Amino acid sequence: MNGAQAVIRTLVAGGVEVCFANPGTSEMHFVAALDDVPEMRAVLTLFEGVATGAADGYARMTGRPAATLLHLGPGLGNGLANLHNARRARVPLVNVVGDHALGHKRLDAPLESDIDAVAGTVSGWVRRSLTTGDVGADTTDAIAAARGWPGQVATLVLPADVSWSEGAAVGPVRHARPAPRVPDDGIEGLADVLGPSTVLFLGGTALQEAGLRAAAKVAAGTGTRLLAETFPARMQRGAGLPDVLKLPYPPDGARKQLDGVEHLVLAGAVEPVAFFGYPGTDGRLVPEGCTVHVLATPAEEVVAALQALADRVAADATPQVAEVRRPELPTGRLDLRAFAEVVGALLPERAVVVDEAVTSGYFLPGATVGAPGHDWLTLTGGAIGQGLPVATGAAVADPSRPVIALQADGSAMYTIQALWTQAREQLDVTTVVCDNGAYAILAAELENVGAASGGERAGRLLDLGGPALDFVALATGMGVPATRATTAEELAAQFRAALAEPGPHLIDAVLQR
Amino acid sequence: MNGAQAVIRTLVAGGVEVCFANPGTSEMHFVAALDDVPEMRAVLTLFEGVATGAADGYARMTGRPAATLLHLGPGLGNGLANLHNARRARVPLVNVVGDHALGHKRLDAPLESDIDAVAGTVSGWVRRSLTTGDVGADTTDAIAAARGWPGQVATLVLPADVSWSEGAAVGPVRHARPAPRVPDDGIEGLADVLGPSTVLFLGGTALQEAGLRAAAKVAAGTGTRLLAETFPARMQRGAGLPDVLKLPYPPDGARKQLDGVEHLVLAGAVEPVAFFGYPGTDGRLVPEGCTVHVLATPAEEVVAALQALADRVAADATPQVAEVRRPELPTGRLDLRAFAEVVGALLPERAVVVDEAVTSGYFLPGATVGAPGHDWLTLTGGAIGQGLPVATGAAVADPSRPVIALQADGSAMYTIQALWTQAREQLDVTTVVCDNGAYAILAAELENVGAASGGERAGRLLDLGGPALDFVALATGMGVPATRATTAEELAAQFRAALAEPGPHLIDAVLQR
Repeated sequence: MNGAQAVIRTLVAGGVEVCFANPGTSEMHFVAALDDVPEMRAVLTLFEGVATGAADGYARMTGRPAATLLHLGPGLGNGLANLHNARRARVPLVNVVGDHALGHKRLDAPLESDIDAVAGTVSGWVRRSLTTGDVGADTTDAIAAARGWPGQVATLVLPADVSWSEGAAVGPVRHARPAPRVPDDGIEGLADVLGPSTVLFLGGTALQEAGLRAAAKVAAGTGTRLLAETFPARMQRGAGLPDVLKLPYPPDGARKQLDGVEHLVLAGAVEPVAFFGYPGTDGRLVPEGCTVHVLATPAEEVVAALQALADRVAADATPQVAEVRRPELPTGRLDLRAFAEVVGALLPERAVVVDEAVTSGYFLPGATVGAPGHDWLTLTGGAIGQGLPVATGAAVADPSRPVIALQADGSAMYTIQALWTQAREQLDVTTVVCDNGAYAILAAELENVGAASGGERAGRLLDLGGPALDFVALATGMGVPATRATTAEELAAQFRAALAEPGPHLIDAVLQR
Repeated sequence: MNGAQAVIRTLVAGGVEVCFANPGTSEMHFVAALDDVPEMRAVLTLFEGVATGAADGYARMTGRPAATLLHLGPGLGNGLANLHNARRARVPLVNVVGDHALGHKRLDAPLESDIDAVAGTVSGWVRRSLTTGDVGADTTDAIAAARGWPGQVATLVLPADVSWSEGAAVGPVRHARPAPRVPDDGIEGLADVLGPSTVLFLGGTALQEAGLRAAAKVAAGTGTRLLAETFPARMQRGAGLPDVLKLPYPPDGARKQLDGVEHLVLAGAVEPVAFFGYPGTDGRLVPEGCTVHVLATPAEEVVAALQALADRVAADATPQVAEVRRPELPTGRLDLRAFAEVVGALLPERAVVVDEAVTSGYFLPGATVGAPGHDWLTLTGGAIGQGLPVATGAAVADPSRPVIALQADGSAMYTIQALWTQAREQLDVTTVVCDNGAYAILAAELENVGAASGGERAGRLLDLGGPALDFVALATGMGVPATRATTAEELAAQFRAALAEPGPHLIDAVLQR
C-alpha cells in the first residue's frame, strides 16, 4: 500500500468519506488511489475556495469532517478565505495539502512556498507527514484534531514521495471524544443571575433544536432574554421552534439590543464585539457595568448545560415557539421585502438556507420564521464568497434536503465557480442572486466610517454596473439552468419551478432599491 | 491630511500611479481619498487574485510597481497565488492590505487573522503602519523595498484608524537605486569557459532586447549556446531579435538540452531545477560534472554584464536574429498546430502575449518566432490563474499595445473574474481560450509520476466536461464580447476581427486532440 492509499483508507475508516478536491501534480497519487478506495467520494471543484467552503458546509450539516485536497501553497492560498470562515464556524475539517517530494524542497522550485506558515493561520493543528510509514497514523491524528471540541481545521501536508512510496499502513481508528461537560456548580451559580435584565447569548450547537428548546424554557421560566450570535454556523428555526433574534450586525443596532442588560450569559458563544472599528466608537458591545458570565464556552457541551439549567430554574415552563405563518405571495415591484416574502412563502420543508444575502437580507428573518422547520447557515468569518461553496457542501451532505442559497451579487463573484460543481454533481441547490448591481454594504460602510465623500471615483469602486453582471449567462456557462426575475410574480414562479425540479438552478433576482 | 490621503499621495509621488483594488470596510477611507488624488488610477477587480495578478502584469511591462488594495487577511489570501507568481517574477509590487483599527485587534472580531504570517510568505518586506504620523514614511519605505533589485512584493498593512486619522504627512521621495554592477574581474574570469560545450542561461532582464543582443553576440563569437529560463517574466522576441530557446518544462526534455554541457553560466537566472520531483529521479537538471558559474545573479545588473562580456570576447561578432517569417493561415481542423499557426500568422506589431496555454502551447514558439517583435509573459511561479489577470495589468500598463492572452481552459477558471475588469476598463485584450475540456497537463503528470491507473474515478478529477464550460456565455456574462471557433478558418477570422476592434474580446477555441 502506498502513502496515498493509506491516507484515503484511514480517512474512510475515521468517518471522512468525502473529499473536495483541486488536485495538481503533487497530488496525482492521491487521485490515482481514489480508484482503489471507492468508499471515498471525490468531488472536483474548479477553484480551491469552492473546495474549502464546501467542506465547511458539509461539516456544518453532518458534524463530521470532509477532507479537502489542495495543491501546494498557492492552492492553499486560494482556499484560505473559506478556511478562515470554517475556523470561525468551528467546524471539523481535514485539510490535505500536497507538497513537493521531500528531496525536492531544497531546490526552491517555482512552486515552492511556506505552506506551514499559511496553514498555521487557519488551522488548530498542522503536520507535515515525513515518512510513508507514519502517514496513516498522521492521518488518524489529523482526524482526531479536526474532531476535537469544538471542531477545527487540521492541516495535513502531504509530500508527493510520502504519497507515492510503498510501505504505508492504515492508521488506527480513534473514536471522537465527547465534548467536555460543564460542572454542575458552574450551572448552579448562574441560576441567580437569570431574569429580565439578563441575556442568554447563544452560539454553536445551542442554536440547534435541543439547545434552543432548553434555552427557551429558561426564558419562559425566568424572563431571561435570548439572543443568538450574529453569524451562526448553523441555526435551526421555523414553525414549532423557538424564534431567537440574532444580534444585529450594525453596532448601533447591537447596542440597542444590549442596552440595559446587567448580565450576559454566554452559552456556546463568545462575547459579542463589533465586526469593525469605527472612528470614535469602542468595538466592545457589552454595556458598561454589565457582567459577563460563561455557562459554556464553545469548547464545552452547551446543550447539556442549557438542559441542566432549564431543569434547575424552569422545569415546568413551556417554551415559546414560532407559529405556522407564511407571508402572502407578493406582487409587483421586486424589492427587498418582496424577495423575502417569496422566500418565506415558498420555503420547502427541511430546507437548508445558506445566507450570504448581506444587505439584501434585511426582511428574511421575519418572513421565514413561521415557515416549516429549516436550517440557516451564515457568513461566520465575514470573508465573502462563502455562500455558493457552503451550499455545495451542504447539498453533498444530505441529498434529501433542498438547499437554498441566498446570495449577494458582489460576494457571488468570489467563488462563482461553485456553480459548475453543483451542475456536475447535480446537487439540489437553488441559488437566488440578490442582484442590486453594487457592493451595497460598502456604500453603507463608507457612511459608517465617516468617509462618505460623495466622490465619483470612490463611488465607482462600489458599483458593479458598467458592465452589469449577467448571472443567467454565468450560470448557464457552467451548466446550471438559470432565469431572471424582475417582478415579484416572476421570482415566485421561478423559485417554485426551481424547487420542484431536482438539480441546481439559479435565479437572478433583479432587486429594486 | 488623513493617513489614507498621505499613503496615496506618497505612492503617486513615488511613481506608483495605479492601484488594483478590492476594498472592504477597513479600506473605505482609502477609497474616499481617491477623490482627493486624481493622479492615482484605481482599477476595481471582482476578486483579489485579479488585483494581484494585474499588478504583476503592470510591473512586468513598466518595470514600476503598481499598488494593490486588499481587504484584511482573507483578501490577502485570495490574492496570494498571484503574489506568489509575482514573487517568482521578481517584479516590484506595493501590496496594501487594510486591517482593523489598532484598538480593534484585541477583540478577535470575526475577520481577525494573522495577516503578517501570510504576507511574509510572498513578501520581501512587510510592515504594519502603527501611527498616522508615520504612514507617509512607511509608504516611502514600501516603495523603496518594492523597487529594490530585483523587484519584490512589499506589503504595507494599513490599520483602518491609521488611515482615517488626521495628522499625516506625505513621505519623502526616494530615488530607486540602480542595480549593483558585476565587478569586472567577475566578467573577465568567465571569458575562458565560453565555447560550444557551455550554455549561457538567461533570465530576468537578460531576456529583453539589449540583453538578448549582447548574449547573441557572445554566442556568435564563441559558439556558446544560449538557453532561457523556462518561465520568464518577460521575454522579447520576434523577427529581428535573437531567438533563444526556453529550457523545456518536462525534465526529460530539459535534460536533453543540457546533456554534455560542461559549463553553465547563469545570467540573471538561477540554476534550473525540475518543476516537480518524480519517483526515482533527481530534481536537479544540471548534468553531473557540469560546473555552474554566475555572471550575474537576479540581484545584479545582468544586461551591462552581458554587454561587457560581449565586448571582451565577441566585439566584432554579428548576433544571429530571427528572420521575418510567418506561418500560412491554416485551414480545416483546429488542433494545437493550427491554433499556433493562426497566432503566428496574425500576431500584431508590438503585441504583448500572455502565455498560460499550458499543454496547448506546444507549437507557439516556432509559429511566432518570425512574427513582428513582441513580448512574451509566462507563468513564473506555476500557480495557475495568472494569465487573465496579468493580461489585464499589461493592458493597463500600455494601452497602445495589443495584449493577447493565450489561456488554458482549466487555468482560466481560477481568475475568470478578470474579464469583467477588462470590460469595465475597455482594455484591448484578446483572450483565446484553449478549450480542450480537461486538465490535460494533469493527465500527463499522472503518467509522469507513474500513477496512471486508468481508473474512471481518477479520470473524472482531470476532466472538465460534464458539464462543458461555455466560455462564450461566461465572457458575455461579464461584458466581454465572445465567439466560438471550431475550425482553423473560424479562429483566424475571429482573431483578426478581435484584433481589429478596440476593447476586450474572447474566443473560445475548441481544440481537437
